Order: sequence, then C-alpha cells, then structure tokens
Amino acid sequence: MHSQHTRVTPPEASGLATLDTPAALISVPRMQHNIARMQAQADALGVGLRPHVKTSKCTPVTQAQLAAGARGITVSTLKEAEHFFAAGITDILYAVCIAPHRLPQALTLRRRGCQLKLITDSVEGAQALADYGRQQGEAFDVLIEIDTDGHRSGIKPDSPAVLAVAEILRQAGMSLLGVLTHAGSSYELNTPEALTALAEQERAGCVLAAERLRSQGFACPVVSVGSTPTALAAGHLHGVTELRAGVYVFFDLVMHNIGVCAQEDIALSVLTTVIGHQRDKGWAIVDAGWMAMSRDRGTARQQQDFGYGQACDEAGRPLPGYVLIGANQEHGILACAAEPDPDIETRFPIGTRLRILPNHACATGAQFPVYHALAEDGQPQPWSRFHGW
Amino acid sequence: MHSQHTRVTPPEASGLATLDTPAALISVPRMQHNIARMQAQADALGVGLRPHVKTSKCTPVTQAQLAAGARGITVSTLKEAEHFFAAGITDILYAVCIAPHRLPQALTLRRRGCQLKLITDSVEGAQALADYGRQQGEAFDVLIEIDTDGHRSGIKPDSPAVLAVAEILRQAGMSLLGVLTHAGSSYELNTPEALTALAEQERAGCVLAAERLRSQGFACPVVSVGSTPTALAAGHLHGVTELRAGVYVFFDLVMHNIGVCAQEDIALSVLTTVIGHQRDKGWAIVDAGWMAMSRDRGTARQQQDFGYGQACDEAGRPLPGYVLIGANQEHGILACAAEPDPDIETRFPIGTRLRILPNHACATGAQFPVYHALAEDGQPQPWSRFHGW
Repeated sequence: MHSQHTRVTPPEASGLATLDTPAALISVPRMQHNIARMQAQADALGVGLRPHVKTSKCTPVTQAQLAAGARGITVSTLKEAEHFFAAGITDILYAVCIAPHRLPQALTLRRRGCQLKLITDSVEGAQALADYGRQQGEAFDVLIEIDTDGHRSGIKPDSPAVLAVAEILRQAGMSLLGVLTHAGSSYELNTPEALTALAEQERAGCVLAAERLRSQGFACPVVSVGSTPTALAAGHLHGVTELRAGVYVFFDLVMHNIGVCAQEDIALSVLTTVIGHQRDKGWAIVDAGWMAMSRDRGTARQQQDFGYGQACDEAGRPLPGYVLIGANQEHGILACAAEPDPDIETRFPIGTRLRILPNHACATGAQFPVYHALAEDGQPQPWSRFHGW
Repeated sequence: MHSQHTRVTPPEASGLATLDTPAALISVPRMQHNIARMQAQADALGVGLRPHVKTSKCTPVTQAQLAAGARGITVSTLKEAEHFFAAGITDILYAVCIAPHRLPQALTLRRRGCQLKLITDSVEGAQALADYGRQQGEAFDVLIEIDTDGHRSGIKPDSPAVLAVAEILRQAGMSLLGVLTHAGSSYELNTPEALTALAEQERAGCVLAAERLRSQGFACPVVSVGSTPTALAAGHLHGVTELRAGVYVFFDLVMHNIGVCAQEDIALSVLTTVIGHQRDKGWAIVDAGWMAMSRDRGTARQQQDFGYGQACDEAGRPLPGYVLIGANQEHGILACAAEPDPDIETRFPIGTRLRILPNHACATGAQFPVYHALAEDGQPQPWSRFHGW
C-alpha cells in the first residue's frame, strides 16, 4: 500500500498534489459567493459594507471584498492597518478601543494619508485621546463604542457616559464620526428568530445612542453595526449607515451551527495527510493537529460538535460523521464520531489526502503563513497572510 | 487618568516600556532554572535528554538546552528539522510518523549531513519507507513508535506488528535504531503517585518492545521515552537510553495543575495593556485576546480553571484570583473569578500593563513571531520564532 503512488486524485483536486500538508486552502468560488451574498445583503438593507479583515489578514481576499463593493475596511490591530494601508487601502476603521500608548502609531498612519478611524468607550480613554490629539494638532476621527448586548466592550446606549465622551472629544477639537456596536453574543444563538431579534436590538441600541448625541448637537453621521450572524438576519437597518462583518468571507462550522451558512459554503479548509491508524479504535491519524486547526472548539457548546473539524475528501466533499475527535500539536485523530469504523484503514490508507473544515476560520487561518487559493480549475496559488502584532 | 504618563513601572520591568502589546515574554532566569532541573533529572536517571523543541521553535532556547547537556533534539515537523539543522544542530529526531510524501525531504536533509531519525508505527508506513530507502540507496535511521498508554499513535508493545515492522526495515537495509514512546495521557493526571505509575508503564512498555526485538536479533540500541510529567515523576528508567520532554522549558498552567511546577516556574507570559472596563461587571478589558493567548483551554477540565490565563503584575508577580475569564480575537476579559471586583477600574486603570501566564506554552508561543527574552536586568532581547510548515 504505497499510497503516495497509488492514490487516485479527483480531478477537482488535481493541483493539490504539489502542496505539502497541512496546508490552508481557500476555495475562491465559495469565497466569491460569500462575498457577493454579504454585499447583496448590505445593498438590500441600504447600508455600506465595511468588512472586518481580521478573518483573513490577506490582501487578495480584502481586495476581492472591495472589488465587490465594500466601502473601507475594519481592522483589529494597527499592524493590519499598516499592512492594508501599504497595500493601497486608505479608509480603515480600527475597531478596538485605542490604548493611549498606541496613539503615536495612529498619528503616524494618519499623517501618511491613512483615513484611520479610532474608537473609544470610556471617559478616561477619550481624555487620553483628546489630550494627545490637541497636543499634536490632530483632529482624530473617532467613533464611540456602544454596548448593545453586554458581551464585551462599549457604553450602554442610554448611559450619560456617551454624552460625556462626546463632550470631551468636542472640546479638544476631535472629529466625532458617530457610534459603533458589535453584537458578538450572536454567536450564542441558532434560530433565525433569535438572530433577527438580536439584530434589531443591536440596531436599535446603536441608533438610540446616535439620536441622544444628535439631540445634544453632535452630527453623528456614522452608525456602524454588525456581526456576521446579525448582518445576515437583520430585517431592516433603519438609522444605520454601515454594516461590519468578518467571518462570512470564509464561513466555518460555528456559523453553520448558528444557521447562517451551509457546509458547502465554507471556503477555508485544511489539507491533511493520513499518517497512521489505530484500527481497533477506528482511528486514522492525520498530520493536521491543533497547530493546524487551532485550539478553537467553538462547536463543542453548539447543537452539533464537530470536534476539531469536519473531514471531507480531497476534492472538498464532506464525509458525514467523520470528524477530528482529538488533536495534539501535529496529530489529529480522525474517526466516525457515532461509532468506530472497523474499515478505517482501508477507507483512508496511509497517504490519503483529506480536507478538514474548521470550527472557526479566524483561528484556523491564523495558524498558517500562507493560504493556497484554488480557482475553478483547482490550481493552487499562494496568498500570503501576516502574523503577529 | 492618563495612565501611560503616570504609570509607575516596577524596577523588574524597566525594560518593558519599549514593547508594544501583546508581546510574548520569556523570563530567562526561569527558563534556565527549568532547563537545569530537567537536565539534572535526566542525569540522575542515567539517560540522555533529547528536548522536544516544538514548544519554543526558537534557536536561542534550543541552544540553551544543548549547552546545559542535552544530546540532540526532537522535532514535530520537517520545517523544524530544516531550521535547526541550518542553525548547526545535526542530531535530530522527527517524532511524528513519516508520511510517504515527505521521504524526499527527509532524504535531502540526510544527504546534506543531518543525522535525521524517522519513526514509523505501521507495516504500511514501514514498507513505504523501506521501498523508498532501498530505491534511493539510503539506510534511513528509524525508530518504531510504541503505544504505551493508548492516547494516540504507536504499536502495542506485545503486538506482532513490532517485529513485522522491524523485519521490513531489516530486509530493506534500513538502520533500526530502536523504539520510542510518549505517554501523553500524563496530561490527564494530577497526583505524584499516578504520574509515577504512568512513567513506569511508559518505561516498561517501551523496554518490553525493545526486549522482544532483541530476542529476534535486532540490536535496538535506543529506547526513548518521555513527556514532561512522566519525565519528572519517573522513579527509575532502567532499560531506557533517552528522555524526551518539551514544555518543561517554559512550563505553563496545565503543568502547574498536573503538579510538576509552581506558578513561579512559568517562564512564558504575555504582556498586555488594559484598554477599558465594564465596571458594573467587574471587568477590565485587555489587549490580549485568544489571538495572543491561543484558544487553548487546557485548564478547563483540570482542578483549577484559569480561563485564558492567570494575571500577574508587570513584574510577573501573580495576582491571585484574577484571570482572563473570556477572550475574543483581540480582547481579553480580566476579572476576579470568585466575585466581581467593584474596584476593577482603579485597580487596573487604562494603560496598566500586566502579564498573563498561559494555559499551554506550546500553543501560546505559536501565536507570536518573536519572543522578548528578559534577562536578570529586565532588558528585553528579541528572539525570533518560526511559524508554519
């Protein structure tokens, strides 16, 4: 069984033989489908789309989103801002509250021509930003982060702190663009009704904060909301000007469990090779461990637990029931989750190549320095991805 | 509260002000202590130490292990082998069963002078290796992986397959060095008695396999065992020639819960900055999310759950009870796990710098392209770490 010699390669995977494993694959047709779907959703809702590029950290992916109609991007680190500004993208929202020590880096980006937008959610943070901006003669563009679901950061829409922060920024001559929120608790839901209700809560809370600001004389032109699940579930976005979402570009098993994509929409997978078996247990050992898949076990607390990922054949067709039930650093344990497969050795001989769909595309992508983008013809093209801060 | 201006810096952390956050810090004194401890253990047990460098993927760390007496290294990928061979290390054991498609890369390394050792745990894998070696005229150095605890790969010590694999290798003229095992289930234990018992099971199983091979005329000079917990718990290693262990070089909270290190031994931490609060909930928001800490929640199923990590002050002194109770990609939620701290805002104002001890050093380290090594004087020195395959 010299499987590297006898393996039959499906035509759809003809270009994969040159890749070592584990490798991160992007199905470009699926990615383009996902991009078009979210852009159509934003268009239908009458808002701009500002994709969160932390998911891919990859220039060709981001360029595809902009080519499809996105207006500006969202980033989670200033390294992302630096990288994408260097790639020619100027309209960048840094959607993590600015730490005072990072203000000089933000200033440098703006002085170089980047339309960098910052966010803050506290009087202390706003004061540090305002003081630095005034001292440097820079009218930073700022949004106030609003907390519409209690899951993380932000000021409650009806809190006096919303106005206090705005006043600090106004007095220092900063440019208050508006308000922003992210209903990240959408990841805990799994029915259309619950998602639509949360999308409305996210919208209404953010619009309320904007209206309170406007009643005090702040123009507040931007009202920015979103997460992939709420973006896709929103019934309307009255009062909102832009939508942010990230993981939709690839989708993943967590999103599948939430109910916003099919497995067939998932554009990111990990190519892996079978390296051994434990026949008595029905295990195949593959070379995609947690270093490749990440330690993300986001489906563990959802309706269907996919372990460390759903197995597919080399061409990307799901193999129902076969998941990575365990993972060490460079070993994955592939098994039929329902009951041990007595034929595991003959079904997946050593050298067999499979693809594994990830629980969480943002986390799995981050494990790889490069993606291999597969166009319709199955030929892989390397798309680099950056790492670190 | 312009905390970046007023923050009082402990003398032990004087060199950290220049670092952006999140940053991976190595305490060099702690690392050297850990290295010396494991080397002394191997010396006392009368075996060689072959550290597993997948934990650090960092040349200065590996060089420190070799300088302290280690004999050769263990790697989990051929990229590690390439990297460390380029750094001048020749005695390298690749401790993941060799996939047939990787044999040409292994051959190239050997032809360049790397004393690369391979492992296999199946008749199929051994046959592919033997065929390729014979075809190329290369007598690969091979160890047979033995399964002494059922947690992953390997052949049971008493299985006929041990002899069958050896015979395949002999007939093709390969060099059978011996046997190797890794009792990775040691991570599930937490008492000295249980660890010592598992260490004995690991030793006895591997020695049994070696004796069975010797009874059939195979010299089997190498008997290689180990994991950090069993290495430290072993009462004796009669019949064993070398010990492998990896995570001990840094240790982590999982190892602390297992009982083989103190929190004060943990040499890897993540420097982070407070960027906000949710006072009503007793939360401080920090800029170390799961992208920095990794998604590893290894302590979740242990006796003490440290969330995404244990908080320490900037100088590395643990703050008992304060852990990252949650994490998003670039946000960590720091709280007193027992009960909400009403003074969280004044205790940790915006701009405060903290260190977070990781659940799993191998996973957290992998999130960073560089470590910052802190010697006694607290001055950081960048030590690069490589990424990917």
